[in-house]
Amino acid sequence: MAVYSDVSIDDLRRFLNDYDVGTPLSFKGIAEGVENSNFFLQTDQGAFILTLYEKRVREADLPFFLGLMEHLSSHGIACPQPVRRIDGAQSGSLNGRPAALLTYLNGLSLRSPDADHCAAAGAALAALHEAGFEFDLYRPNALDLDGWRELATSIVDRADTVQSGLRDLIETTLNDLAEQWPHPLPSGIIHADLFPDNVLFMNSEVSGLIDFYFACNDAFAYDLAVLLNAWCFDDTNTFDKEKGKNLLAAYRKHRELSDTEISALPVLARGAALRFLLTRLYDLLNHDPMALVRPKDPRDFADRLRFHRKVKSATEYGL
Amino acid sequence: MAVYSDVSIDDLRRFLNDYDVGTPLSFKGIAEGVENSNFFLQTDQGAFILTLYEKRVREADLPFFLGLMEHLSSHGIACPQPVRRIDGAQSGSLNGRPAALLTYLNGLSLRSPDADHCAAAGAALAALHEAGFEFDLYRPNALDLDGWRELATSIVDRADTVQSGLRDLIETTLNDLAEQWPHPLPSGIIHADLFPDNVLFMNSEVSGLIDFYFACNDAFAYDLAVLLNAWCFDDTNTFDKEKGKNLLAAYRKHRELSDTEISALPVLARGAALRFLLTRLYDLLNHDPMALVRPKDPRDFADRLRFHRKVKSATEYGL
Repeated sequence: MAVYSDVSIDDLRRFLNDYDVGTPLSFKGIAEGVENSNFFLQTDQGAFILTLYEKRVREADLPFFLGLMEHLSSHGIACPQPVRRIDGAQSGSLNGRPAALLTYLNGLSLRSPDADHCAAAGAALAALHEAGFEFDLYRPNALDLDGWRELATSIVDRADTVQSGLRDLIETTLNDLAEQWPHPLPSGIIHADLFPDNVLFMNSEVSGLIDFYFACNDAFAYDLAVLLNAWCFDDTNTFDKEKGKNLLAAYRKHRELSDTEISALPVLARGAALRFLLTRLYDLLNHDPMALVRPKDPRDFADRLRFHRKVKSATEYGL
Repeated sequence: MAVYSDVSIDDLRRFLNDYDVGTPLSFKGIAEGVENSNFFLQTDQGAFILTLYEKRVREADLPFFLGLMEHLSSHGIACPQPVRRIDGAQSGSLNGRPAALLTYLNGLSLRSPDADHCAAAGAALAALHEAGFEFDLYRPNALDLDGWRELATSIVDRADTVQSGLRDLIETTLNDLAEQWPHPLPSGIIHADLFPDNVLFMNSEVSGLIDFYFACNDAFAYDLAVLLNAWCFDDTNTFDKEKGKNLLAAYRKHRELSDTEISALPVLARGAALRFLLTRLYDLLNHDPMALVRPKDPRDFADRLRFHRKVKSATEYGL
């Protein structure tokens, strides 16, 4: 969650001059999204999210992110849809930063999803993978093996101040993954961050997917491994096989997994756990108290990574 | 702005079981209010604010705050109105803390109010003072001269780390105020924190007053002195006499000021400036980075206090 920037009403009015969305009735910073400042905007024509892109989102990536949401919306995925400006542009400028207006989705994100919710999330991921097929922009995954190594270099020295043994866990895993990382796997558009925070539910049905700012082109099965990490562990970081089984089965109803993908799952799950361990560790060690964002605990993903390092085959995930 | 507590959807549902407000459609933490966690709640019956009272709000004060908002609402003041539970209670419990559901007000708070907005704020304050007349609960102002002295004791040692000369300014002012503080003045319900953040506008008209968690019984003219501090200085902390004139004139159209109140205004304005200097300094020196609240700069009120210390009569405020 984050609100990095203050936006005055005069600045808002100037920004909205370029849009045909009516008169603002209410405007409040909301606790959503880690990378950007987000505001709830109610006008006499409807509800919107105004996103102000902070420095962590590269401006050059915006056509990808916004174009992707537009593409997915028009291909049946319930996700925020960029509202085009009167001149047709997908984004504008506010407080000297790029900013976009997006449709507002109803729905509630769950803190403790149950096995049925995991199935719904798995199905939603498969639908997203399919809906992305014809999207014609390309964005490499900045947080791939090379990205993790770079991130690790900047923080491993201080890793053991957070948890004893963390440096060794990170370095050993990076070395193992460099040897074991599977190439090539079926790839396309992936969300890359589909945590329960980013899935809205209405009466046990998925009503929307949000926060596409890590979306990129990468292996579909890696995205699935992200979901295993994000949805199928309990509060003590113990893997819940029933949840894993439900999530994987629901995914496979929409998109079948190849044998290569299945056998790669444990390695991919280690990579996904390492990715969140590293970014959370980085955010904790470089925490900006002015960012109004509460750093998340990296140790959860150290525990999950240790679990995945013992997994021998995808059957242990419930497959 | 603040969101101190996370609230899960299950906890929300349990809380809402005691209310007749429909089914939740959307629920988001919002960047509003410094003392509490606030959430925007949309149900199929309407929009609400859910406020979770954190430790800085004494539970024993809730009947005063909530009762006051209910009283003011029924006396023509546009302010959040507590939604009663099915059993008639004004508040419930959530995450082990007291929590209340309030009606949601449309309107936008202004960063840079102009002289017309200052008039509207002055008129709104007078209306609030009058509407509070028959409210029968009583809450002393915890942030009175004694409260300031107590606060100062805990922080003056470190005051000069924020700005050189601050300790002396605080101690000299406290000593002067102890001698000069006017008693008695016409008193009643005051808001005590009616900054531009807490006044919602719709097309130059006040559409709502919010954040009553400093409201108390104290001198009306002190509340007016708070507004002079909060509304009538520019970005360089220079007093804008036109704004002051507008604000005071609009107030006096609704409630006349006595000669005693008028001659007390410079001392009251020093007190009000000191109050915000001290609480901001305290918050800065005791900043909890986990609170997701950006500390405000106390030096603005040091500058304003220095100005008020030179003011000889209320005519300098535009009266």
